[in-house]
Amino acid sequence: MNGEITPEDVQRSEAVYEPLTRSLRELIDVTIRSRVSETDARKAHALIEEACELLGSRLDPDPFGVRFTTEGQALNWGNVAIGMRNAIAPPLQVVRDEAGGRASVDLVLGAAYEGPPGQVHGGVCALVLDHLLGATAHRRNEPAFTGTLTLRYVAPTPLGSLRAESWVERDDGGKTFAAGHLLDAQGRITVQAEGIFIRPKRPA
Amino acid sequence: MNGEITPEDVQRSEAVYEPLTRSLRELIDVTIRSRVSETDARKAHALIEEACELLGSRLDPDPFGVRFTTEGQALNWGNVAIGMRNAIAPPLQVVRDEAGGRASVDLVLGAAYEGPPGQVHGGVCALVLDHLLGATAHRRNEPAFTGTLTLRYVAPTPLGSLRAESWVERDDGGKTFAAGHLLDAQGRITVQAEGIFIRPKRPA
Repeated sequence: MNGEITPEDVQRSEAVYEPLTRSLRELIDVTIRSRVSETDARKAHALIEEACELLGSRLDPDPFGVRFTTEGQALNWGNVAIGMRNAIAPPLQVVRDEAGGRASVDLVLGAAYEGPPGQVHGGVCALVLDHLLGATAHRRNEPAFTGTLTLRYVAPTPLGSLRAESWVERDDGGKTFAAGHLLDAQGRITVQAEGIFIRPKRPA
Repeated sequence: MNGEITPEDVQRSEAVYEPLTRSLRELIDVTIRSRVSETDARKAHALIEEACELLGSRLDPDPFGVRFTTEGQALNWGNVAIGMRNAIAPPLQVVRDEAGGRASVDLVLGAAYEGPPGQVHGGVCALVLDHLLGATAHRRNEPAFTGTLTLRYVAPTPLGSLRAESWVERDDGGKTFAAGHLLDAQGRITVQAEGIFIRPKRPA
């Protein structure tokens, strides 16, 4: 399928799966917070099973991976942080300033990302920061892998509107030393992060 | 609702929401991997919207938090790592050996947890390890919060069957110094972790 996906295929697929996955994110949320009767919950379960059967009737055996269009655009639709077709992903819409080696993202995390009551799970903060710091190290067709990641949780991260920012501290050939933080809705730092990201050497 | 949930309420709720959420996890997976026609995908979307409306017709305005039964059992059903009603959660079924200060979990992560092609996202590894190291620091009615977490990614983590293990290195009053790792299906270490977890002092 790689290299055979046209920009028109992308548009058609986005028109179907972007709103479908958005509804699925809402379904994850209401499944946690619902107070309906057992009868209505069982009806909802039957609808979910019906949707599963429909979508599952023709399946790719593999995870989505990264696919490329005829124009060379990378599609990360299955990615757990940014994937358009992955309902676990908020999805992060990373804004990159390649010249300045900076990246940022505004996001809203609801009930589905909870750890301590009313707060974002520390591991979800880690997921957001891992992805965002990694984004500063990413080069076209040279994906960066996390080498080390250190997180300091300086204050609770409340559920709701958040912002994360990252930047390159130092770039050393195949290694990028990046830093960043997560901010609450009042702009206070809740988590600080440092990471080393590695771009594997290609076979010569 | 706290303190009013009986063990029978728990059983009834689990009988409905455990299988519903399991189907929802499958729906997340097939939404990523489906290759059905646009017509079938739109039909599935309509079913998802119908399920949303049903479950959303009576909603708790708050995230789930932690609720307690009349017997004092804590219910973390909304938790993003372990929540029975949270379809993002694999869910982790942590086995704790309180005497030895150890915890472990066997888990299977599919297409919905992908980062690099075929591999678990580094941030998901962080989520699993954050939760598991934190579990060694948890005391009854004294939740532990992550202070710092350091992760070393020593090898790619393939999607599929995995195991995570954690243990207490040192306990210093309200602080637990924990360590752990993630293992692939062959028992090879893919990620190493160290963390400091803090149990906040209660007001006297």
